[in-house]
Amino acid sequence: MTQLDPCFGSIGIFDSGVGGLTVMRAIRELMPFENIIYFGDTARLPYGSKSSETILRYSLENAAFLRTQGIKVLVIACNTSCSAALDQIRSSSDIPVIGITEQGVEEVSRLFSSGRVAILGTRATITSGVYQQQILSRHNTLELYSISCPLFVPLVEEGYVEHPMSALVVQEYLRPLKNREIKGVLLGCTHYPLLQSTIQQELGSDVLLLDPSIACAEKTRMVLAEKNLLNPSTCLPHYQFFVSDDPEKFRLLGKTFLNYPIEHVQQKLAEHYTALLH
Amino acid sequence: MTQLDPCFGSIGIFDSGVGGLTVMRAIRELMPFENIIYFGDTARLPYGSKSSETILRYSLENAAFLRTQGIKVLVIACNTSCSAALDQIRSSSDIPVIGITEQGVEEVSRLFSSGRVAILGTRATITSGVYQQQILSRHNTLELYSISCPLFVPLVEEGYVEHPMSALVVQEYLRPLKNREIKGVLLGCTHYPLLQSTIQQELGSDVLLLDPSIACAEKTRMVLAEKNLLNPSTCLPHYQFFVSDDPEKFRLLGKTFLNYPIEHVQQKLAEHYTALLH
Repeated sequence: MTQLDPCFGSIGIFDSGVGGLTVMRAIRELMPFENIIYFGDTARLPYGSKSSETILRYSLENAAFLRTQGIKVLVIACNTSCSAALDQIRSSSDIPVIGITEQGVEEVSRLFSSGRVAILGTRATITSGVYQQQILSRHNTLELYSISCPLFVPLVEEGYVEHPMSALVVQEYLRPLKNREIKGVLLGCTHYPLLQSTIQQELGSDVLLLDPSIACAEKTRMVLAEKNLLNPSTCLPHYQFFVSDDPEKFRLLGKTFLNYPIEHVQQKLAEHYTALLH
Repeated sequence: MTQLDPCFGSIGIFDSGVGGLTVMRAIRELMPFENIIYFGDTARLPYGSKSSETILRYSLENAAFLRTQGIKVLVIACNTSCSAALDQIRSSSDIPVIGITEQGVEEVSRLFSSGRVAILGTRATITSGVYQQQILSRHNTLELYSISCPLFVPLVEEGYVEHPMSALVVQEYLRPLKNREIKGVLLGCTHYPLLQSTIQQELGSDVLLLDPSIACAEKTRMVLAEKNLLNPSTCLPHYQFFVSDDPEKFRLLGKTFLNYPIEHVQQKLAEHYTALLH
């Protein structure tokens, strides 16, 4: 086995911003010796309020950039990107592509077959109906509540996680779920786990909150194992971070999401990697 | 005078999104026969939370696009763009360039020479210190309070203007101004006039709210008159709207800002106009 062996390649992850670092965190904890390359499209975030056509274009560009970096598997850690671009990226890719939404669907379907479950997501994710369709195609006896929470991303990105404003906004968005005997709530956006304790407090401890990032990490390991692509090394892995806007802001905010220090972040202008496709 | 006379050219306006339509509204009301071309960079908004380097790049691209459309004056209707790019756009331009921030500074300086005045803006505008420096260079006896209100833009863009959430967020951001005998508040972002009544209610009717869009329109007319560039026609003018994301969303949301129906919006992908500069 040489250094050129694809096992030594990296796991590629992209998201519109820092949110996908919650997925990287889960992957890092499960596979501590895998190399990882993360790309956050911070110069064009948020994706959740934009059109599916624009999200598709941005997502294809992000995937094309990561492909130039020698990755062995691609993880789309952005629910909004998955809802608009997962099929197209997968069909044009010769490496495995894992989408966070599919793992969210798996989690809900594994845990619930009846009763009331809520899905929280960005406007684009909820409007796309991806979660609703895929969950109902497995258990059509589930009663789904879909709520788009467009202010959650700016709240988290602006650092208001512990602020009273977050509690007020959470209360407002989740009002339709009160006294509805909701069994579980899928956090259908990688930013939302940062608001987990506020959401839990609002809904009460009986409601199970589902963060698909752990399932996403497990799926990634399974796919790599099946293809004999797990890295056999037990050396310290190499992490690379790329963003399209200010590296320093990402570095500082990112630590909270990754729960691990981020040392160096490189800036990659969108103009450079869009050229890969056009 | 022929149709090729520059008087018949358009007033070019750009903003990161729909906010600048409040400036277009003021220009249209003041100069009802002028042709106007508006560009909203909706695929990359918001600007206010991004780095000054990225905002500069986007703003130069927007200006370059409008220059290809045969404009006779350029109005930068985005405070965040002005704070990062006004000087550079102006120095490389052979047509007059008007920035909304300068008109905000004029308004504050004209109305107040002492006492307490507050400036509300995006994080990028407030951090740049553009308003603070320019106002204090005219009246250094003014006591300025600068508050960045990063959630105001998403609140307005998501259509929560009349929603209780807006009142809560306004209350939270303006807390430092309570009982401070504030005389005036500059709305240093073109989205904020949409929250004017909520802000007024929070601060009380004694506080004067300043929206620089009317001053911006007056300045535009003055500059055009000085250069003999006012359109002498009294025919119905031609309005063109370009955006980088979904035209339909802009058309629907834009009506509220412009207070006038928007019939047709064209999409212009960023990839096309960035090529003008690279």
